[in-house]
Amino acid sequence: MSDLHCPKNIQRIGSLLFQASGAGEAEAELATAELVKSSLLGHDSHGVMRIPEYLGFIEDGSLKTQVPIETKQTSATTAEVDCGYGFGAVGATRAIELGIEIATEQGTACVVTRRCNHVGRLGSYVHMAADAGMLAIATCNSPIYGHHVLPFGGREGRLATNPIAYGAPTAGNPIVADFSTSVSPEGKVRFYRNEGKLVPDGWILDSNGKPTNDPNDFYGPPKGGILPLGGGAGHKGYALGLLVEILGAVLTGESTTSTETFGNGVCFLVINTNSFTQTDTFRSLLTQSATYME
Amino acid sequence: MSDLHCPKNIQRIGSLLFQASGAGEAEAELATAELVKSSLLGHDSHGVMRIPEYLGFIEDGSLKTQVPIETKQTSATTAEVDCGYGFGAVGATRAIELGIEIATEQGTACVVTRRCNHVGRLGSYVHMAADAGMLAIATCNSPIYGHHVLPFGGREGRLATNPIAYGAPTAGNPIVADFSTSVSPEGKVRFYRNEGKLVPDGWILDSNGKPTNDPNDFYGPPKGGILPLGGGAGHKGYALGLLVEILGAVLTGESTTSTETFGNGVCFLVINTNSFTQTDTFRSLLTQSATYME
Repeated sequence: MSDLHCPKNIQRIGSLLFQASGAGEAEAELATAELVKSSLLGHDSHGVMRIPEYLGFIEDGSLKTQVPIETKQTSATTAEVDCGYGFGAVGATRAIELGIEIATEQGTACVVTRRCNHVGRLGSYVHMAADAGMLAIATCNSPIYGHHVLPFGGREGRLATNPIAYGAPTAGNPIVADFSTSVSPEGKVRFYRNEGKLVPDGWILDSNGKPTNDPNDFYGPPKGGILPLGGGAGHKGYALGLLVEILGAVLTGESTTSTETFGNGVCFLVINTNSFTQTDTFRSLLTQSATYME
Repeated sequence: MSDLHCPKNIQRIGSLLFQASGAGEAEAELATAELVKSSLLGHDSHGVMRIPEYLGFIEDGSLKTQVPIETKQTSATTAEVDCGYGFGAVGATRAIELGIEIATEQGTACVVTRRCNHVGRLGSYVHMAADAGMLAIATCNSPIYGHHVLPFGGREGRLATNPIAYGAPTAGNPIVADFSTSVSPEGKVRFYRNEGKLVPDGWILDSNGKPTNDPNDFYGPPKGGILPLGGGAGHKGYALGLLVEILGAVLTGESTTSTETFGNGVCFLVINTNSFTQTDTFRSLLTQSATYME
């Protein structure tokens, strides 16, 4: 990036655009900051290219501004956060903050979202938890319209790309992982199609269940599917995708086949590292592990 | 199986052999039952072939009989179970029972083991939790001597095959998944070597980091490695393996590079489905999902 002021400018422009569309200052700042951060980290698919998309959602009424976020604690350690279809990043931030609060007191927490718009980069939230000394796992599903991913051996999509992320504190920057449970996210297949290129082997099947490298065979019509993570061991990626589906939908009482559900189903599992070994020991042992992996 | 009495006979023989080696009746029955169940489910690698192996461990002192299991609750929802190097299945059963107890009261639980011998089939424990209406995730790591699995892009093993299992209740039998985070478990590579056969593409590298199909190139010397789950997307399998390592070792204050640590590091994350939607709703929604996946 040649202009060091550029991220600040985009932050300002994005925030003001959202505010001009009816958003409050705090939510506009937070939602824009999440997108800018993703772009700066090189994850453009979850970055500032989403600003015009979100503006479109505000215009069509699917993203609501200045809505209250309602949290409901359902047991000593579990909670549901109703995001009211406001900015997904605002709802997810509230959810992980609540998870950190509960786990700090109780040792563990499980917090899920309802009526949650696109949360952006899942890794961002587990990073916040790791910064607070927590080991956090996050999952995110999408309803039926995003079911691009084939069950192992199947030929029709039944799951979204259902990412898993986790964050853990070290003596330095936390370890953060964030990945879809399919071979590839849908956005990458779209990228190849837009570039007029063939996708690598083992990514997609056409509508007849036959391997293909032509991204147009995935989009159809008739529509093909993206393969689950794992190739010949794709039953493992499929099992992981199903776990994300269970945590994101079934656990909160949502049907995974509903055509009326809309938005991301996020689940945060938070473990206080201080409830086992001391957090400082955890940090130094994980730093040692990371060095061993290099 | 042609003789329907056969599992009962093996149960009786196994249990009596363990008892003759010093085990108490209850622990001998439970440890044998776990192995018999694995064999009946077709998972022979974790089945009755382990009876002579465990007898050897009792003889060499690494598996201790009639030792107390000590549980230490470290917060409202977290606990450590010191298995005292008794039968792994006995310790792991106590750990999942404690996880179910805590999650029933508090909504969630995280229970880890210490000084735990081979626990057998991880899926067995999450199955117990699902039978109690819980959604449970289990992970299991192994110390440095089991580090057969390569980091993505690496050429020396740094992780064990680090399995993940989960169980969730439905209206019928629970959904249970249980899989290593490497392309293949080590036992399958051994099976190919014993059969004098080549392993499939994408399973192993030789000691120079080159792809090979010859299982002897994995065993060496010099030793090669097993690839993480995911092929070209093997960074995802690697991230999952590292998560299992963090839950199994770092969280409990164990160094992942210690040459003195011995046994399985198990972590159970238990979520009470009743703390979100009602368990009956969960059961029927997951049954509906399973039908949709077919």
